[in-house]
Amino acid sequence: MGIRDELKPFFQPKSIAIIGASGRPGTVGYVIVEQLKKKFKGKIYPVNPKYNEILGLKTYPSILDIPDKVDLAVIALRAPLVPKVMEEVGHKGVRATIVVSGGFSEIGGEGVELEKKLSDIARKYGIRVIGPNCIGVLDNTTGVDTFFLPEDRLKRPPKGHISIISQSGAMLSMWIDWMALKGMGLSKAISYGNKVDVDDIDLLEYLREDEETKIILMYIEAFKPNRGSKFVEVAKKITLEGKPIVVLKGGRTSKGVRAAASHTGAMAAGYEVYKAAFKQAGVIEVDTMDEMFDVAKAYLMIGPVYGKRILILTNAGGEGVIATDFAERYGLEVPELPTEVQQELRKKLPPHVIVRNPVDLTGDTDDERYRIVLEELLPRKLFDAVIVITPPHPPSIKGIVVDYVVNAWKKYKVPMVAVVTGGAIAEEHARKFEEKGIPAYQTPERAARVIAALAEYGVFLRKHGVQPKVKE
Amino acid sequence: MGIRDELKPFFQPKSIAIIGASGRPGTVGYVIVEQLKKKFKGKIYPVNPKYNEILGLKTYPSILDIPDKVDLAVIALRAPLVPKVMEEVGHKGVRATIVVSGGFSEIGGEGVELEKKLSDIARKYGIRVIGPNCIGVLDNTTGVDTFFLPEDRLKRPPKGHISIISQSGAMLSMWIDWMALKGMGLSKAISYGNKVDVDDIDLLEYLREDEETKIILMYIEAFKPNRGSKFVEVAKKITLEGKPIVVLKGGRTSKGVRAAASHTGAMAAGYEVYKAAFKQAGVIEVDTMDEMFDVAKAYLMIGPVYGKRILILTNAGGEGVIATDFAERYGLEVPELPTEVQQELRKKLPPHVIVRNPVDLTGDTDDERYRIVLEELLPRKLFDAVIVITPPHPPSIKGIVVDYVVNAWKKYKVPMVAVVTGGAIAEEHARKFEEKGIPAYQTPERAARVIAALAEYGVFLRKHGVQPKVKE
Repeated sequence: MGIRDELKPFFQPKSIAIIGASGRPGTVGYVIVEQLKKKFKGKIYPVNPKYNEILGLKTYPSILDIPDKVDLAVIALRAPLVPKVMEEVGHKGVRATIVVSGGFSEIGGEGVELEKKLSDIARKYGIRVIGPNCIGVLDNTTGVDTFFLPEDRLKRPPKGHISIISQSGAMLSMWIDWMALKGMGLSKAISYGNKVDVDDIDLLEYLREDEETKIILMYIEAFKPNRGSKFVEVAKKITLEGKPIVVLKGGRTSKGVRAAASHTGAMAAGYEVYKAAFKQAGVIEVDTMDEMFDVAKAYLMIGPVYGKRILILTNAGGEGVIATDFAERYGLEVPELPTEVQQELRKKLPPHVIVRNPVDLTGDTDDERYRIVLEELLPRKLFDAVIVITPPHPPSIKGIVVDYVVNAWKKYKVPMVAVVTGGAIAEEHARKFEEKGIPAYQTPERAARVIAALAEYGVFLRKHGVQPKVKE
Repeated sequence: MGIRDELKPFFQPKSIAIIGASGRPGTVGYVIVEQLKKKFKGKIYPVNPKYNEILGLKTYPSILDIPDKVDLAVIALRAPLVPKVMEEVGHKGVRATIVVSGGFSEIGGEGVELEKKLSDIARKYGIRVIGPNCIGVLDNTTGVDTFFLPEDRLKRPPKGHISIISQSGAMLSMWIDWMALKGMGLSKAISYGNKVDVDDIDLLEYLREDEETKIILMYIEAFKPNRGSKFVEVAKKITLEGKPIVVLKGGRTSKGVRAAASHTGAMAAGYEVYKAAFKQAGVIEVDTMDEMFDVAKAYLMIGPVYGKRILILTNAGGEGVIATDFAERYGLEVPELPTEVQQELRKKLPPHVIVRNPVDLTGDTDDERYRIVLEELLPRKLFDAVIVITPPHPPSIKGIVVDYVVNAWKKYKVPMVAVVTGGAIAEEHARKFEEKGIPAYQTPERAARVIAALAEYGVFLRKHGVQPKVKE
């Protein structure tokens, strides 16, 4: 049986047993039942000898008492009780179990022994395990949701195409809540905790064939020992098939590695080893959380950028300068316009417009100058992407510039991002761009970083013979 | 007469003449009169031979026809008309003029000559000039406002303690609009354009003694030739007197410098020269716009940080790891807790809490654990600042943690910043921190950067013998 089939019950079970289900609102065992009841379409079997029913669902003393087949068991019990229950899970013939309980190897001492027992029992029965010490799985399509925080504390995002694998459950849950606020669409989110069995790479393999997942975000502190080359193998397949992977690495400095070791017990290899692995696999490594979501947003809207030559088009000289600085820092090229092209532009624009690169339309620009420049430059195939800086403040800007940008993107198939710095009017202007498919950012720094990340991926694809296909 | 007296009419004039005032809504000459009429308490004299009145104000054919003294002239005419008008300004005895008109050296050719003429006339009469090709001055106390964008396009921020000097007018106006959205308080904003006369350093001298200005933000592409050492002299005085200067430098890469040369004609010295000057003067250099405002917010709330040893207190292991990585990157120290201190903490906390540094209270923490750790650690004087990571998602977090943090800050005089990652509930939690004086950020990266910037400034102050004084 392939890994995809083995992991399928975590995401698409027909029935779920919650061992340690509880009737006390707010507890882990209650919230899991509550969330499943709201969204999960399959059968839900709470298990707890102290209850006959929980939230109106018949409750069983033991998993062995459930009359039907159970595809997925979720264990939310104190750690010392887990091994015995795992034996029962095994007897029941369940193939997949999420252990959310803490109190295992992360606390050392007896926790290490308990984890060893858990692992041995799982192996004996051939049970795939996510956890322990994790928040488990949130599948936004099937309604599997073991994130044991109630929705008034932790909102769930709308359905979408981003999937996330995180070595930190707490951070993953915060991201989920943040995505809900921003309206970013989630497909699947998984936190595997101590990864006694299922690890990042197994999950990558699952997400590889998941059609709802169009981009994978990962927070990694350390792979399991000896899994580095498998990561490169799996990740490279995924990226070359056209699904980008974006990684945020925790533990990049000596103190950070020490902190990671305290956190997940993971003794990380040197950061340089990870960096090389990411590069080899065509994985986009980001520096910050902001960047991670900036890149995800842009990719879903405009796809890869297949080269490094960018045009910067601005009405604010200072922002053009900063965009240029950051483009160069991130390895992009900001080539000067050829002299004859500058001459063509000069004929069509007022004399004070700066027709180099950045092209600075200056503060008195109207929408039309943007159209003129894009129509003049893009057919010449001089650029792989455009950063369009269009603050909406000058009264001469009527807003039709958004359509000009969108039309040029569709017509010439050159990916674009917008920069819109400012307050309420700027946010409104940015929203208009995004409604029409152009990602918008508050600062040129962030836009430059996003283009660089998409270009890193696009250039990787080209280098491996993947035919460029600009998203429309 | 000192520079402060010379520049005073730009900020505190008793009367302003607007030469090129207009009765056509939306035009530069209209918006300036409109804005002044709304907020400026002194006398306003529109000047335009075509009107008898504008917005209900008596309008004069020439500045020479104004019967009273004029402290400040604002010129908003086409460039070729400016020299003649400057002669009249000189005859009238006006000591300060803002020329917002473009069409001078920035367009080359005849523009250069016009600028030379403007400069000669100003010198002949002893007129101090801001501009040309600028948006001029916004003084949030006196109501001087030559930012010629109407408030429905560009909001003005509330009164406050941040002053900004920018080489880019367009960018400055976007920042102003952004600050208005965020409710950040502005004192004065100045964009000097081609700086034919008044430059960044003159403005620094003015802001040095301005009591409403508690922090100065600057966007710089290049100083005027030979003004570098004067910058260091003036800036160092200001920073040592306790007013920090935060600089964002445009033109840090070769392509960025080229773009800056196109933008403001400024041939910048190598970036390394600027970097050294900033360091020598105790100026905080930031990398991005986000950072600039992050630092400004924190400084106004908690002041300088007088050392580099930080405590990271978290309930999310991953965020602790990332905070540590970034602290180390930015030159902060994250010292391990001494063994005996770890033992003390162990007695008071559940066994699975990680009592090193970061101190990881883990996902099941309540508010109380934060209080215990702060009360145990802060009296020991082991740390110069604290990053407190407190996502509000666990139901066991009731929110009183905000008071614990604020109380510990007041009691032990250790500056703190909060990290609150997440959606609506996180934003609410962050607001509570900020209402009580603790700056809050969405990510640990940003918090670490802010502490590093405040520490850079505090360590500079100490090195120069300034007595530490933690803000309360």
